[in-house]
Amino acid sequence: MKLAIYGYGNIGRGVECAVRQNPDAELTGVFTRRPPESVRTLTGAPVYAAADVDAHASDIDVLVICGGSATDLPGLTPALAGRFHVVDSFDTHARIPEHFAKVDAAARESGHLALISGGWDPGMFSLSRLYGSAILPDGKDYTFWGRGVSQGHSDAVRRIPGVLDARQYTVPIPEALDAVRSGSMPELTARQKHRREVYVVAAEGADRAAIEHAVVTMPNYFDEYDTTVTFITAEEMKRDHAALPHGGFVFRTGRTGLNREHSHTIEYRLTLDSNPEFTALVLVALARAVDRMAKRGETGCRTIFDVTPADLSPLSGEELRARLL
Amino acid sequence: MKLAIYGYGNIGRGVECAVRQNPDAELTGVFTRRPPESVRTLTGAPVYAAADVDAHASDIDVLVICGGSATDLPGLTPALAGRFHVVDSFDTHARIPEHFAKVDAAARESGHLALISGGWDPGMFSLSRLYGSAILPDGKDYTFWGRGVSQGHSDAVRRIPGVLDARQYTVPIPEALDAVRSGSMPELTARQKHRREVYVVAAEGADRAAIEHAVVTMPNYFDEYDTTVTFITAEEMKRDHAALPHGGFVFRTGRTGLNREHSHTIEYRLTLDSNPEFTALVLVALARAVDRMAKRGETGCRTIFDVTPADLSPLSGEELRARLL
Repeated sequence: MKLAIYGYGNIGRGVECAVRQNPDAELTGVFTRRPPESVRTLTGAPVYAAADVDAHASDIDVLVICGGSATDLPGLTPALAGRFHVVDSFDTHARIPEHFAKVDAAARESGHLALISGGWDPGMFSLSRLYGSAILPDGKDYTFWGRGVSQGHSDAVRRIPGVLDARQYTVPIPEALDAVRSGSMPELTARQKHRREVYVVAAEGADRAAIEHAVVTMPNYFDEYDTTVTFITAEEMKRDHAALPHGGFVFRTGRTGLNREHSHTIEYRLTLDSNPEFTALVLVALARAVDRMAKRGETGCRTIFDVTPADLSPLSGEELRARLL
Repeated sequence: MKLAIYGYGNIGRGVECAVRQNPDAELTGVFTRRPPESVRTLTGAPVYAAADVDAHASDIDVLVICGGSATDLPGLTPALAGRFHVVDSFDTHARIPEHFAKVDAAARESGHLALISGGWDPGMFSLSRLYGSAILPDGKDYTFWGRGVSQGHSDAVRRIPGVLDARQYTVPIPEALDAVRSGSMPELTARQKHRREVYVVAAEGADRAAIEHAVVTMPNYFDEYDTTVTFITAEEMKRDHAALPHGGFVFRTGRTGLNREHSHTIEYRLTLDSNPEFTALVLVALARAVDRMAKRGETGCRTIFDVTPADLSPLSGEELRARLL
């Protein structure tokens, strides 16, 4: 299958690397809204202007849209789903129904197939929540994130006056994980589930106490959590906090038996050195499924919930049953 | 959907309990090869003779076949797939392709839909292996079982002269789990991955040393593992070893990045108080999918690899996207 990347940031670079791990996929181009000559790809993949994407349609089976969910994808995905089979990683959970409806309308009208919200949350974590709730109906699910970098929280700290750079780690609390694993189905507050670690590079002469206060009291982002703020140098930030690790846990615990006498725990855990590279690998597997489903004549919008596991794999049904079942 | 149970052992009783947790499912009958009047169901579900199952066809959307993989299912599932939409839990991994082919032929010819090998391994563990390999192509997977009761190993010990009863627990070795979690992709022998604990009730006057020797040297079952044999009384067996817990771990670890510089670990863990009741819940979720897929006109044999996650859930696509994605 011929894939192209639309938007060349962290996830776009991840897709570029991911294609090399999937022998049935070929990267035919990277489309950017920057001047193409200013962009150098990791693997030498050709770079084209985003405005020229339609001219390359015959070289694109599936277009992997790699943009931000806040401002890029809400417009981009519906527009591109009118001309290509597409995959995106839209991750604003609360706005998924609205995004789905717009993409679905555009894709149906043009006879294309689109898949939105690929990645790990939404994505693989969503799958775990769905499988868990379908299998253990008398139960409860829990999602924990981290230890990992939250871009949204890091950005929020960077907007505080006197902050030059910031990195925020979301950290699940071990006692909460153990309480969930025990099958006791505890009720947990935000503060009981996660703590937040913030590393800040402050401007020379900035009021560090004021910065710390602004962080820990920030509504929605930090006020409901125990947060530690550590001031570091720009060199330390670059040396110790350049990576983008993430991951987390999805649990489903439930009870079975005539008198609910048996307890069951399903735990799905991701430990990721590189959040964008893992997201990109999920997107490429989903692009494979979109390519197959489109060739079977499907149109409209889908999510990972609508994809058979078999369609994600390069192996045939016979191979899957013999080797992995 | 109207479900019926064919075969009333541990899994059959589990399906009976599972139906009560799924409001969209109704249990219309239990079919047994024993004299129906000798069988009393847990919930008062009606019991019929297996030979009369065809007379109840109009009350059965999906027949859940609950038999043993060694002798029952290889004949039963193809025969019943010629008359009903069916689900089974065939779990002899090496013979799945052969079983699939026979069931597929019978189901296609009669226009029915069959799903084989539902449960957790094969089943949910298979899904984890597939998702893991599709997402991290440059990686390695590991399956660990336990701590849990292996019926096959328990039966093997029971066949040793002088053994009145036996229970075998498969136990994953913590150091091996940690080595896998580290992302180092170790090569592990059978002995390094699992140990085996055997509890034996010996006949009065039996040669315990001979029994222990027969256990720990038994080819295929025990000789490649470190095995402990503990002699207990019949009362202790009944008091401490009546339950059927099981579970285990599926890992996929892999590397990403331009120079394979990033490591990723996917861990899927089940901790089950009741192996048959959990298996039964998976079978009921799969029966829901079979019912929907059959109503869409699908025929032939399928596995859990061919089922969209959405089809396992009683929720609508809109509900799933809004609540679980």
